[in-house]
Amino acid sequence: MLETFPGPITAFVQGSSRGIGLSLVRRLLDCDRVDRIIAGARNPRASDALMELAESNPQRLRPVALDVTRPEQIEALATTLGEENVRPGLVLNVAGLLHDGADLAPEKRLEDLSADRLQRVFAVNVLGPALVMRHLLPLMRGQDKAVFAALSARVGSIGDNRLGGWYAYRSSKAALNQMLHTASIEARRRFSNVIIAALHPGTTDTGLSRPFQANVPDGKLFSPDFVADRLLQVIDGLEGKDSGGFFAWDGQAIPW
Amino acid sequence: MLETFPGPITAFVQGSSRGIGLSLVRRLLDCDRVDRIIAGARNPRASDALMELAESNPQRLRPVALDVTRPEQIEALATTLGEENVRPGLVLNVAGLLHDGADLAPEKRLEDLSADRLQRVFAVNVLGPALVMRHLLPLMRGQDKAVFAALSARVGSIGDNRLGGWYAYRSSKAALNQMLHTASIEARRRFSNVIIAALHPGTTDTGLSRPFQANVPDGKLFSPDFVADRLLQVIDGLEGKDSGGFFAWDGQAIPW
Repeated sequence: MLETFPGPITAFVQGSSRGIGLSLVRRLLDCDRVDRIIAGARNPRASDALMELAESNPQRLRPVALDVTRPEQIEALATTLGEENVRPGLVLNVAGLLHDGADLAPEKRLEDLSADRLQRVFAVNVLGPALVMRHLLPLMRGQDKAVFAALSARVGSIGDNRLGGWYAYRSSKAALNQMLHTASIEARRRFSNVIIAALHPGTTDTGLSRPFQANVPDGKLFSPDFVADRLLQVIDGLEGKDSGGFFAWDGQAIPW
Repeated sequence: MLETFPGPITAFVQGSSRGIGLSLVRRLLDCDRVDRIIAGARNPRASDALMELAESNPQRLRPVALDVTRPEQIEALATTLGEENVRPGLVLNVAGLLHDGADLAPEKRLEDLSADRLQRVFAVNVLGPALVMRHLLPLMRGQDKAVFAALSARVGSIGDNRLGGWYAYRSSKAALNQMLHTASIEARRRFSNVIIAALHPGTTDTGLSRPFQANVPDGKLFSPDFVADRLLQVIDGLEGKDSGGFFAWDGQAIPW
């Protein structure tokens, strides 16, 4: 795993308290080439699973409190990492917002659109990853291979959109895809060897998809561990020419 | 002009105080099939040109104060129009934000990204048109042809993005495209005969493009009147099968 990266790798995972992010942390801990994992989460102490992993791996795993809707926290983390001369080889923005289990749910129809909910979804799904990229990309340069990937979603594809609905989530992921693609063009000029990618994890059995799992076909609801494994395989296979692309868990390119 | 619409047409133009929006109002006033034009602008009284048109056309042109970043104003306007039994046949969201001539300018590089500026651009370019659509689409149904179009921009195309930069503007227009495309799917089911389209005006000699006109090739900087005319031709040619598409001023489809 991650053989295409020069080791030892420092990895940063944002949204690591549960779901796919937590599984990615576990899988990265299993990987010999990964020296150190910085596990960002809004409130890492609220995740027993992450805290247990950190206690068992005190040298390798470092949980950090990071809320991507608070730009000053992103900047402060980047400053700290820079001062410590940390050079992440792999940055994964996993955190995303589809619903909050309360008053924020994906829109079934136009009448469900609200400015407040749109703003909240865009803050987490677009502004957050964009600012993480803005602050961490400069720390990633100068390595033989480095990857910045963010979880997007196939429902963010405009060309592949046949069902409608989910306005905030769909349009935020389209915006994220454009953000990543735009950064890949700048990265080619300025941060050579940093590959940027938008990834679609497939429908995964996590809190995000839980209210919407009823119509998932048999065999198409994946475990977070399976998805973490497949996403790391996709990342391992990425080359410079793939930078700026949008890939599913099985490596297939997804149309914009 | 607008022969494919059943007359008499009520048109609504948001962002009508200057530039392409003002030219669209002028062109619609010239069109016999257009009975009435509602001209929305943040502050219509600040536009001498719009006020003069309104004074010369008191029966046909009605300026209304509408700031799309204030959802309660959009809702109030829709309620008023609904109560007056106004059925817009053509709604054009022209307002957009690229720069403010002061501290908001399109990003040249990642380091220029800021949460505050991203939020401002998304509020005008995505949330605004989405909420205008949410509130006005229900008033548009039941006509033989009706069109809701918003000005997008070719730089919002992810597939066509080769230069990079302009993060907020590019990603906001990608999000807008997804918003419009998603609504077109719902409109097919619920608001039959309302065609929804994203339009690229080309580089137009307005305040929006003024700081960036130096590198525009000869003959590629259009006048607002020319663009208004071409956009109305494109709209005239739209059929049900085109709904949800992204079209340039010359009618060519643009990739997502």
